[in-house]
Amino acid sequence: GINDDVTHTSLDFDPAFDIESDDIVRAMFWGLGSDGTVGANKNSIKIIGEETPFYAQGYFVYDSKKAGARTISHLRFGSNPIHSTYLIHRANFVAVHQFVFLERYNVLDNAANGATFLLNSPYGPDEVWDQIPRPVQEQIIEKNLKLYVIDAAAVAKETGMGARINTIMQTCFFAISGVLPQDEAIAQIKHAIQKTYGKRGEAVVRKNYAAVDSALAHLHEISVPDQATGSIQKPPPVPAAAPEFVQAVTAKMIAGDGDMLPVSALPADGTYPTGTTQWEKRNIGLEVPVWETDLCIQCGKCVMVCPHAVIRSKVVEESALEGAPAGFLTMDAKWRELKGQKYTLQVAVEDCTGCTLCVEVCPAVDRQNPERKAINMHPQLPLREEGRQNWDFFLNLPEIDRVDTLKFTNVKNSQLLEPLFEFSGACPGCGETPYISLVTRLFGDHAIVANATGCSSIYGGNLPTTPWSQNKDGRGPAWSNSLFEDNAEFGLGMRLTIDKQSIYVRELVDRLRGEIGDDLADSLLSADQSTEAGIIAQRERVVALKDKLVNAATPAEKDLLSLADMLVKKSVWIIGGDGWAYDIGYGGLDHVLASGRNVNVLVLDTEVYSNTGGQSSKATPLGAVAKFAASGKPNDKKDLGMMAMSYGTVYVAQIAMGASDSQTMKAILEAEAYDGPSLIIAYSHCIAHGYDMAQGMNQQKLATQSGYWPLYRFNPEWRAQGKKPLKLDSKAPKIPLEDYMYNENRFRMLTKSNPERAKKLLADA
Amino acid sequence: GINDDVTHTSLDFDPAFDIESDDIVRAMFWGLGSDGTVGANKNSIKIIGEETPFYAQGYFVYDSKKAGARTISHLRFGSNPIHSTYLIHRANFVAVHQFVFLERYNVLDNAANGATFLLNSPYGPDEVWDQIPRPVQEQIIEKNLKLYVIDAAAVAKETGMGARINTIMQTCFFAISGVLPQDEAIAQIKHAIQKTYGKRGEAVVRKNYAAVDSALAHLHEISVPDQATGSIQKPPPVPAAAPEFVQAVTAKMIAGDGDMLPVSALPADGTYPTGTTQWEKRNIGLEVPVWETDLCIQCGKCVMVCPHAVIRSKVVEESALEGAPAGFLTMDAKWRELKGQKYTLQVAVEDCTGCTLCVEVCPAVDRQNPERKAINMHPQLPLREEGRQNWDFFLNLPEIDRVDTLKFTNVKNSQLLEPLFEFSGACPGCGETPYISLVTRLFGDHAIVANATGCSSIYGGNLPTTPWSQNKDGRGPAWSNSLFEDNAEFGLGMRLTIDKQSIYVRELVDRLRGEIGDDLADSLLSADQSTEAGIIAQRERVVALKDKLVNAATPAEKDLLSLADMLVKKSVWIIGGDGWAYDIGYGGLDHVLASGRNVNVLVLDTEVYSNTGGQSSKATPLGAVAKFAASGKPNDKKDLGMMAMSYGTVYVAQIAMGASDSQTMKAILEAEAYDGPSLIIAYSHCIAHGYDMAQGMNQQKLATQSGYWPLYRFNPEWRAQGKKPLKLDSKAPKIPLEDYMYNENRFRMLTKSNPERAKKLLADA
Ligand SMILES: Cc1ncc(C[n+]2csc(CCOP(=O)(O)OP(=O)(O)O)c2C)c(N)n1
Ligand SMILES: Cc1ncc(C[n+]2csc(CCOP(=O)(O)OP(=O)(O)O)c2C)c(N)n1
Ligand code: SF4
Ligand code: SF4
Ligand code: SF4
Ligand code: SF4
Repeated sequence: GINDDVTHTSLDFDPAFDIESDDIVRAMFWGLGSDGTVGANKNSIKIIGEETPFYAQGYFVYDSKKAGARTISHLRFGSNPIHSTYLIHRANFVAVHQFVFLERYNVLDNAANGATFLLNSPYGPDEVWDQIPRPVQEQIIEKNLKLYVIDAAAVAKETGMGARINTIMQTCFFAISGVLPQDEAIAQIKHAIQKTYGKRGEAVVRKNYAAVDSALAHLHEISVPDQATGSIQKPPPVPAAAPEFVQAVTAKMIAGDGDMLPVSALPADGTYPTGTTQWEKRNIGLEVPVWETDLCIQCGKCVMVCPHAVIRSKVVEESALEGAPAGFLTMDAKWRELKGQKYTLQVAVEDCTGCTLCVEVCPAVDRQNPERKAINMHPQLPLREEGRQNWDFFLNLPEIDRVDTLKFTNVKNSQLLEPLFEFSGACPGCGETPYISLVTRLFGDHAIVANATGCSSIYGGNLPTTPWSQNKDGRGPAWSNSLFEDNAEFGLGMRLTIDKQSIYVRELVDRLRGEIGDDLADSLLSADQSTEAGIIAQRERVVALKDKLVNAATPAEKDLLSLADMLVKKSVWIIGGDGWAYDIGYGGLDHVLASGRNVNVLVLDTEVYSNTGGQSSKATPLGAVAKFAASGKPNDKKDLGMMAMSYGTVYVAQIAMGASDSQTMKAILEAEAYDGPSLIIAYSHCIAHGYDMAQGMNQQKLATQSGYWPLYRFNPEWRAQGKKPLKLDSKAPKIPLEDYMYNENRFRMLTKSNPERAKKLLADA
Repeated sequence: GINDDVTHTSLDFDPAFDIESDDIVRAMFWGLGSDGTVGANKNSIKIIGEETPFYAQGYFVYDSKKAGARTISHLRFGSNPIHSTYLIHRANFVAVHQFVFLERYNVLDNAANGATFLLNSPYGPDEVWDQIPRPVQEQIIEKNLKLYVIDAAAVAKETGMGARINTIMQTCFFAISGVLPQDEAIAQIKHAIQKTYGKRGEAVVRKNYAAVDSALAHLHEISVPDQATGSIQKPPPVPAAAPEFVQAVTAKMIAGDGDMLPVSALPADGTYPTGTTQWEKRNIGLEVPVWETDLCIQCGKCVMVCPHAVIRSKVVEESALEGAPAGFLTMDAKWRELKGQKYTLQVAVEDCTGCTLCVEVCPAVDRQNPERKAINMHPQLPLREEGRQNWDFFLNLPEIDRVDTLKFTNVKNSQLLEPLFEFSGACPGCGETPYISLVTRLFGDHAIVANATGCSSIYGGNLPTTPWSQNKDGRGPAWSNSLFEDNAEFGLGMRLTIDKQSIYVRELVDRLRGEIGDDLADSLLSADQSTEAGIIAQRERVVALKDKLVNAATPAEKDLLSLADMLVKKSVWIIGGDGWAYDIGYGGLDHVLASGRNVNVLVLDTEVYSNTGGQSSKATPLGAVAKFAASGKPNDKKDLGMMAMSYGTVYVAQIAMGASDSQTMKAILEAEAYDGPSLIIAYSHCIAHGYDMAQGMNQQKLATQSGYWPLYRFNPEWRAQGKKPLKLDSKAPKIPLEDYMYNENRFRMLTKSNPERAKKLLADA
């Protein structure tokens, strides 16, 4: 039910109203994004629906976070056909597959009186009760729940199932839910295992059987005390330091209660505050990097590649370090210009996804022990508390002065710039986000972003939180997503609007120069904003201008006051994936590139439609297996860069951060500086490519070294200067194409399913 | 009112119902597409609405024919505000600006009793009555009309107004309609002339004044006899030979009575018969070409360029000429292979638009008299009757055998092929249609066409008639128009459907080979249809197949019978303008080109959105003045060909028939033969370019000679054969760009409005 307290058009309803008959088994399962809960539940439905006389129904609730998000499965079983609305409100079975959820979500709110509660717990039957937060204890007692626990992770490990707890939890469900008599239930599970794994051999089947048996052996009913005794309280969903809106609205959504928010709580114009991912500590990294000051050369590569902007560095005066937590590490800064200052590298351990990319790119290796680098992965839990304190202290250290210290044109220096895109919900190790972070480091405080639908719109702007953030002055990218297909036009509209408004505001400055004063008017109108210093100076002039207009009374004065910020340069970014740029939004992209307008297009090229599960796009390379290209894409990747270059008036670059972070930097800086349309095609590794994302940056390097992904920049300005407009930034292929391609499952798949064709396509490529 | 006699949902209405007050002047004006009637009426509204206390209203009815179509203006004037529905049903003033309309339309059906009837007549006051068709006479008498005539053409000529009769007819309207007292009316017209032409100098104003005065002097009231005496009858709108549907439906629309057709008269599935322009003799060419057998070299160039497929040639045995009309000219055929046969070149004088393109391209000049060529323009009227007879005889002569006579790979031979696109309503001298005609000569009987919205969809398929036609066997292109933006996808859908159906029908042939017989089945399945002979042979096999299936009973047999025609090769053509291909449909076009499917894309590149009046597209060249590019297009023409070539798998050609008709032939043949997507970009001169269309083909030549429009062909097959895939077919520029550009007003305009910028842009170009 919607609670429309604004237009009052919603109907009242009784949340307790329920006409479901009691002989239906209503089961709710709380799982984590990729822990297999949803899959196991679908399998249960299949077993019961197909192999028994019972009827089954299932609904699955999950958001679009790429990893580490909660899933809730709502399953119904019964001996009569099920005619029911979607979600369960009175469950007679609740399973919580992740113990931490007890602290985060109200997992028992929908448990019916006398229901069965199955809990996956790292704590044994004897200690578990005390580890359950007190409010949950109270609910268990009040609702007369039957409590069962199992340490599924331990069982999985012991029976050789690795981290996969799904079969174990499914077994427990069958054992205690009463859908089927226990014996029959177990027989059915084993039958299903035989069906699924039979062709993989007897050993696999036996391993799974063992897991089932062991699950039953380790499942314990806990006798519930009469009174809640626990000392653990549920922490608030967001820290007390979070701003009001986050407390009032975002927190509710984070806690899973967004549906309860009244309409009035939502911003009327759809504008949401940015920088909200920082309040959603997900703690999904099992291991996080730990810094070794004896080895670090301060190159900044780890900072640059982190997909989640979780590892950061600052250089500060020693004095700023006063009051630092005990374990807060620093070392002398290795910059001529910053001599005598201190360098520190910190990790937001609660936001780190444990993807390992940073460690992989770290070039500083211990000669004594080549396994040890200047950063190394260590288990997160023991580091959490100390990490949190260090991070908080780190955040409060001053940011680098952007004008008077360094030139931010290389990786080493740019690591010190604050990213305004952080802690996104992208997949751990995502290849897209490092480019976005970098853009925000460089231009974030005057950027405006049009984002195509795709992964980047999901991790970029899906409720409850957004990674697009702000600096201390409250400046940061303005961001919006319109559609998949119209993003280029959407961004062009932003540019046209800004241009129109600047023309008008400049006209006003000129018209009102009597009041403003000639000096200020002239300097406002002639400002050179090609550098950061120029922009900052202009911002100061705008402040002065606004001061003069405090008593604005005439329409012209009021217009000038309201538009004054348009005197400051804005950087327009049009961002999207290859599905957008090569396929569905290409007509518009082409039109925008032809328009001659000053926009910067960043194509995050994963070579497939990643967000919807890896469908083939025109960017998919020859021979790669993708959805709709199951036997390998039969034709070549479209040469988007060449098409754009054919205009002669478009800045075009092809980049791959893992192949050359310095070329990436150059291209992004040049694209932004070019007074016309720019197109940057950025190689982005992706889980759809089928290999461990920790190798993402290494694969990028191989892609370039094998000639698969040449790096280049095409700058129309160079032609105007009498130079060749096209610079090839990578060398002739020095490794065979296979060395790149066959590391990735998308290419390898065909060698298995159709080796003949694979060979032919490799030769064509 | 709609007469819905199918679902009976329309309401009955009384056509005579009328609540208009009698003190409103209700005037109807019948004019011809470009004779200035609509403009003059808009001007009258302005005069009366702005300069007098009266109120005015105007509605204008015209179709989308490019030239030679009827316009009807409905004007109301009165001393009270006018609240009225659109069209006039009881006019108290009717003006007919074209005498021929008396024969064609029911111009007086809406005249009220006692109304005034103004007629522009080439006949003087004494003879005019007898020239009026009898039914019109009867209406004049019955309705007590006051009849006025004027020979506006003569007055225009005499007063130096050339062919422009609009001011003269407007004067007559003001003089006799009674909207204003005559003196005041004349004063107002002169005032308006002063305002409009004042700045062009006293002489122009005086000339217009003279026309006004002369109009009044030559306006005669005719005293109407008591009885109709005329001998002239109104001919039927279409000849009696026309097929039933044309008689029953098309003819009504041609006569302007389409609104009266009951719903049941229209095809339920929207399929209309093709080849219907032949029944709509428009007679709009004032002059038509006349053939001189002493000079003709039978090159066929005139046949190839005619935008309306009006001038045609055949080669026949002498015996076939028996019974030819007296003036039917022939000469010995100049083909080695057709020795002893007769060549004839004929013009459909009633369909010729008088554009002169044919004469311009004719290379055969009389040495004695260089003004005289093998074809020359002569007034149409005296040639009409004889021409009609010759044409009818010509049509009945046998068509050339497409298999056993000649190879139709050059212009000279291909002129003998029957076009299946004829007498279109395109502008006289259109640069688009010759390409379409040629395609239909070559592949028309197995072509299927997806047409983008644009000029080509308007002259191609707007009711009442369509130029897409059929050969004697009833075979011709199947044609449809979906939208402006989705045409490439629309055509791809046709291809996919055909491919799917062929796969299925081939499967059926194989499955049913028992019934069909192995021989027939094998030959059906292995047929080589790369040549016309192959296609014809396959058609014969399909006939044999259908014979075997007369008693089809099983579902498979029935399917095979219904799909048997899909065993014959189909040629898919995707046709549209540059606005479609470069701009609004480009996203889809790109996708289709990337699809690898066997479709042929023909881009009729007029370098502007022609159909909507000449807006700038991405095909518009640098410096050209167009709508939305009033100060000259600031950037270069998009290189669509290059973009398509970047795939490496698309056949791409850039052609210009006027520059090289043989290269045009080659490209079209190769494109069709290529088993993959083909893109042909065809330079199409257009009235939007601002020069006399008679020079269209000459301008095409200059475009190529100046290097503005290079001719090339890119064939992926050549690469497979180890050759270079790209052939440049035109030579290095041999004339300066200005020699081409400044013949066209679109380029010249800027030299007048902004010579500095023009110079700069020319240098850039
Ligand atoms: C018109 C339209 N079609 C389909 C979708 C569904 N959709 C959303 S995101 C997406 C894939 C985006 O792929 P890509 O542009 O390559 O970006 P990526 O996810 O790889 O970053 C699709 C197909 C949509 N939103 N709109
Ligand atoms: C989506 C859409 N936008 C606009 C129109 C209006 N429209 C009809 S034809 C046309 C111009 C076609 O130009 P072009 O493709 O160059 O063909 P040409 O008329 O020059 O042959 C336009 C804008 C339309 N039909 N559909
Ligand atoms: S492990 Fe991944 S998410 Fe964590 S700091 Fe390193 S790069 Fe960032
Ligand atoms: S990549 Fe390694 S050496 Fe470089 S800054 Fe990071 S930790 Fe230090
Ligand atoms: S004048 Fe024009 S329409 Fe007439 S025959 Fe010649 S080319 Fe065709
Ligand atoms: S172009 Fe001239 S010479 Fe050639 S066929 Fe036509 S009339 Fe004859």
